[in-house]
Amino acid sequence: MAEHSWLSDEQRGAWVAFLGAHTLVERALERYLHQQAGVSHAEYEILFRLREAPGHRMRMGRLASVLFSPGSRLNYRITRLAGLGLVRREQHPTDRRGLYAVLTEEGVTFIDRITPGYRKAVRDTVLAALGDEEFAELGRLTGKIFAYLKEPDGGAQERG
Amino acid sequence: MAEHSWLSDEQRGAWVAFLGAHTLVERALERYLHQQAGVSHAEYEILFRLREAPGHRMRMGRLASVLFSPGSRLNYRITRLAGLGLVRREQHPTDRRGLYAVLTEEGVTFIDRITPGYRKAVRDTVLAALGDEEFAELGRLTGKIFAYLKEPDGGAQERG
Repeated sequence: MAEHSWLSDEQRGAWVAFLGAHTLVERALERYLHQQAGVSHAEYEILFRLREAPGHRMRMGRLASVLFSPGSRLNYRITRLAGLGLVRREQHPTDRRGLYAVLTEEGVTFIDRITPGYRKAVRDTVLAALGDEEFAELGRLTGKIFAYLKEPDGGAQERG
Repeated sequence: MAEHSWLSDEQRGAWVAFLGAHTLVERALERYLHQQAGVSHAEYEILFRLREAPGHRMRMGRLASVLFSPGSRLNYRITRLAGLGLVRREQHPTDRRGLYAVLTEEGVTFIDRITPGYRKAVRDTVLAALGDEEFAELGRLTGKIFAYLKEPDGGAQERG
């Protein structure tokens, strides 16, 4: 279209592969989680982050920040997970802005039950296509992109 | 959690990097497209596929297939793009199942205008983080994942 292009044909191919691979990996994992656990991939990630957090709890703002999720969308998902009995909201007794998401006991049991299968599904999709060394290289390359695009205040927010 | 895990800690890190990089790349491009063109990334991809297709038209089923998009979601997006005057639907005169999406003249002008900026945005996000050779390697690795996960009948559908 433009006479001078910002991407060569080869680079366009790499870009399409990157997007396409993510779409198919995401689809495979959504399908697995939907069938085996009745939750979406985004919901799985929320539960997993809470499982790893001290006291199985995180401030809502921090959770939104580490998941790079708009607050409104996170709120919606927390409401659904609360309806399933896996998460509850807690208000900090004195800090008015201190709204937390907390994994319930049922939530802990749930995420511990599905995580091994989730990891096997990752293995069956990505590690079945790539060898161990290639997967490590994919991690290194995407890690560089992640570090580059992460906003300067992202780290500060995460510690908050 | 499980004593034997399906992913090592290093592999989990690679997986998180892959997902995180995609999230941030997608966010940067959504922001760019929203601000510069008022369309989403998914809408951009529909317009671009139609731009490249013979006669700027594709059967709806085939478009859904190459975009790996559920038909209902594609329908919703086509309705929005039609409302913007960029796409129209066309019924095949004899084949009842032959519903096509067609780029309008305005749609051609639109996609030609925004594509150079889109490609520059890809360059500014991914190619600013990776060198040319690393980007090519990322394309090779994700191409392997894409080829592995693509359903066996995907190719046949695309030719349909």
